[in-house]
Amino acid sequence: MYGKLLQPEIVELIDMKDFKTLKEIFTEWHPADLAELISDLPDSEQLIVFRFLPKNLTNTVFEHLPVETQKNIIMSMGKKDITGILMELSPDDRTWLFEELPSSIVKNMLALLTKEERETAKMLLGYPEDSVGRLMTPEYISVVEKMTVAQVLKKIRLEGHESETIEMLYVVDEKGRLLDEISIRQLLLASPSTRIKSMMDRRYGFLRATDDQEIAIEIFKKYDTYSLPVIDTEGFLIGIVTIDDILSVAEEETTEDIHKLGGMNALDESYLKSSVFTLIKKRAVWLIFLFIGGTFTASAMGFFEDAISAAVVLTMFVPLIIASGGNSGSQATSLIIRSLAIGELTISDWWEIMKREIISGLALGILLGSIGFAKIAISEIFTGFYGPHWFFIGITIFISLIGIVMWGTLAGSMLPLLLKRLKLDPATSSAPFVATLVDVTGIVIYFTTAQLLLKGKIL
Amino acid sequence: MYGKLLQPEIVELIDMKDFKTLKEIFTEWHPADLAELISDLPDSEQLIVFRFLPKNLTNTVFEHLPVETQKNIIMSMGKKDITGILMELSPDDRTWLFEELPSSIVKNMLALLTKEERETAKMLLGYPEDSVGRLMTPEYISVVEKMTVAQVLKKIRLEGHESETIEMLYVVDEKGRLLDEISIRQLLLASPSTRIKSMMDRRYGFLRATDDQEIAIEIFKKYDTYSLPVIDTEGFLIGIVTIDDILSVAEEETTEDIHKLGGMNALDESYLKSSVFTLIKKRAVWLIFLFIGGTFTASAMGFFEDAISAAVVLTMFVPLIIASGGNSGSQATSLIIRSLAIGELTISDWWEIMKREIISGLALGILLGSIGFAKIAISEIFTGFYGPHWFFIGITIFISLIGIVMWGTLAGSMLPLLLKRLKLDPATSSAPFVATLVDVTGIVIYFTTAQLLLKGKIL
Repeated sequence: MYGKLLQPEIVELIDMKDFKTLKEIFTEWHPADLAELISDLPDSEQLIVFRFLPKNLTNTVFEHLPVETQKNIIMSMGKKDITGILMELSPDDRTWLFEELPSSIVKNMLALLTKEERETAKMLLGYPEDSVGRLMTPEYISVVEKMTVAQVLKKIRLEGHESETIEMLYVVDEKGRLLDEISIRQLLLASPSTRIKSMMDRRYGFLRATDDQEIAIEIFKKYDTYSLPVIDTEGFLIGIVTIDDILSVAEEETTEDIHKLGGMNALDESYLKSSVFTLIKKRAVWLIFLFIGGTFTASAMGFFEDAISAAVVLTMFVPLIIASGGNSGSQATSLIIRSLAIGELTISDWWEIMKREIISGLALGILLGSIGFAKIAISEIFTGFYGPHWFFIGITIFISLIGIVMWGTLAGSMLPLLLKRLKLDPATSSAPFVATLVDVTGIVIYFTTAQLLLKGKIL
Repeated sequence: MYGKLLQPEIVELIDMKDFKTLKEIFTEWHPADLAELISDLPDSEQLIVFRFLPKNLTNTVFEHLPVETQKNIIMSMGKKDITGILMELSPDDRTWLFEELPSSIVKNMLALLTKEERETAKMLLGYPEDSVGRLMTPEYISVVEKMTVAQVLKKIRLEGHESETIEMLYVVDEKGRLLDEISIRQLLLASPSTRIKSMMDRRYGFLRATDDQEIAIEIFKKYDTYSLPVIDTEGFLIGIVTIDDILSVAEEETTEDIHKLGGMNALDESYLKSSVFTLIKKRAVWLIFLFIGGTFTASAMGFFEDAISAAVVLTMFVPLIIASGGNSGSQATSLIIRSLAIGELTISDWWEIMKREIISGLALGILLGSIGFAKIAISEIFTGFYGPHWFFIGITIFISLIGIVMWGTLAGSMLPLLLKRLKLDPATSSAPFVATLVDVTGIVIYFTTAQLLLKGKIL
């Protein structure tokens, strides 16, 4: 089904509380469509509609809901319903939901699980936030070398409905150490009496439970596979991660980076689900920090007060000149942060980056400087606005722009690398942050150049 | 294998041209690791090492290479090698590579394919760039309703090695129209004599070949599946798209958005693979555009020349005040662009967004305004810098900041929506673009407020 599902006729049926007709309509729908419909409803109506889903669909629909909607629904449910939902949720989806819930509620929910499921849930939650362990599910099919294809197919028939994927099977030794992976394709193409051992090539990609989730994205891209095994420090197979979770992680990580690049703390929830207070809070911290940093521009301007009083004409170019530094810095920082995030660049490339940015900054500075000079020259020819010293004013603008654009480019490209070196998040080097930094220094560069070139002329 | 693969001992063997030892080492490696090693080499060495790979691995390694490296290698190969590589590449990977190559070379390469493969390649390239058709492969397994599980398993044994995935099988009618999808799991769990018809529920997600790739990302997330069928306008099954390609698309689209948000044209290649000239060109266009836009700040300042000459103290706050507008605009535009990109927001939400942004802008403006006022009050108490009219100067800063922050927030949030409404890319509303827009209006807001409040005092 395509496009918006919350059609007027559905809204009307919900408003009229005609759940009988709704139930009939819903029986025909794909669980993913039902989940989309429910998540599009106002919070207060989500549980009402969810309760009236055909019983055989509730668990599947719940799995398809975005985690925010899952949270909203489960927090307004009774114990019995919660138990039913939680027991059916796969362990990785459960971890994902638990991460969103207050820890006191998670504690209560853990108590509702069977002993075995509770142990699993606790084990997964024991891994650090943003680690591969948090994405993992222990629901996979493992086989041993001596099994035949026929035996493995029988095992799949027995355990397959519980496994997250059967695209890949994992070969382990008698102690549970990972030896290889075998695809269902290899299995189906082989004769039933073939032994697993003869199909192995011991070439496989893997993740470690303590790896950062960002690394997992890169490893998935590298091995180009739908699932990867997860091992512990001793090589024991402890779970698998599937690519659908990686797609979600990649999206979350990028959203975080973009929010930070925009100069704010990342939102945890979607825009419309975040309260206005949250929207304000997440921005205020950085805005205040940047404002206080920005007050140094006033100090810098104050330092050149005499020059400003003597030549108001110079002041008029201040916003233009510092903005050019900010813009070139914003370009450089966005470029480098993204390349770091997808693993295209590492800190060790710093010298190569610096060389490229110096050349780029110089070229771009000369370009803008020339346009700036041309603008002054042309104004002078047609209006005589700048007076007899127009040439030196033009040269001041020209040289300042080269200096400021180069400085913006260098600061914008090197700051993310420096932050990464200090084990901080490179994305903190946001466009506004670089711009503020360049504003202050830009004023100093500009007026210093002016004083050198225009001393005894208009200063 | 983990971390950097380009170890000193490997580099040494390459330098010494000891390909015999290298070949022995490489035999043990995973094709994905070999691909990573090759793509880490300088362009000139990539083909040399690729040629010396164990013959049975070349095709798999080539598939794992990033498309830039594929391009570099294939463009230096002879006809015979090219044919071998191209024929083994799956149709979707081939489209991906052809997109990167100059069209004259693609034409030559198409001539190397068999008639059938050439038809397929041309059909896929016939879809618009960035459409689902370009991601599609016609290599899937289709079944009809009357087949039994045993018959389908036999079909998989025959055709499975050619199919992109066997996780999902697609049920079509006798004319080839898509009816349903059946997972390999359902198949393996069912008894051999079960008919496909009895396993169908006619609930499935699908893509259209002409859909935008960005939509495909959202549909994959919604259905939480590894592959989706692609149908044409009449409902005929024409291919499938697999999630690994979606992960790459999502990454590419985001890189493009981040580059644009930073105020430049998106790079087509990775940072280090782009020439310095490209780096400059991609930035220069926007930088010049923003610079010319920025010259209006000089005009705006010129308009208030009298006020500037009369009260130099006011000028000192110009950079701080306009930067605050730019920063709040950068936050708002990053937030909204990202939410639009992942489908959290649509144009129809504009009124809800506007309400939230007006409240946020007002709150943030009052916050910054208060800090600005406090700074002036405190300076006045300790240094007497601002003189008898300090209070009105403080109020001017306070009111201007509220106006400018609100305006920045509104412009930053509404511009992406407006661009989307005009069918342009919302990400064009970059942080520097919004900042430049707000700079000009910020100066007008600031000096107008000053003239109203300080007339007859310091002006």
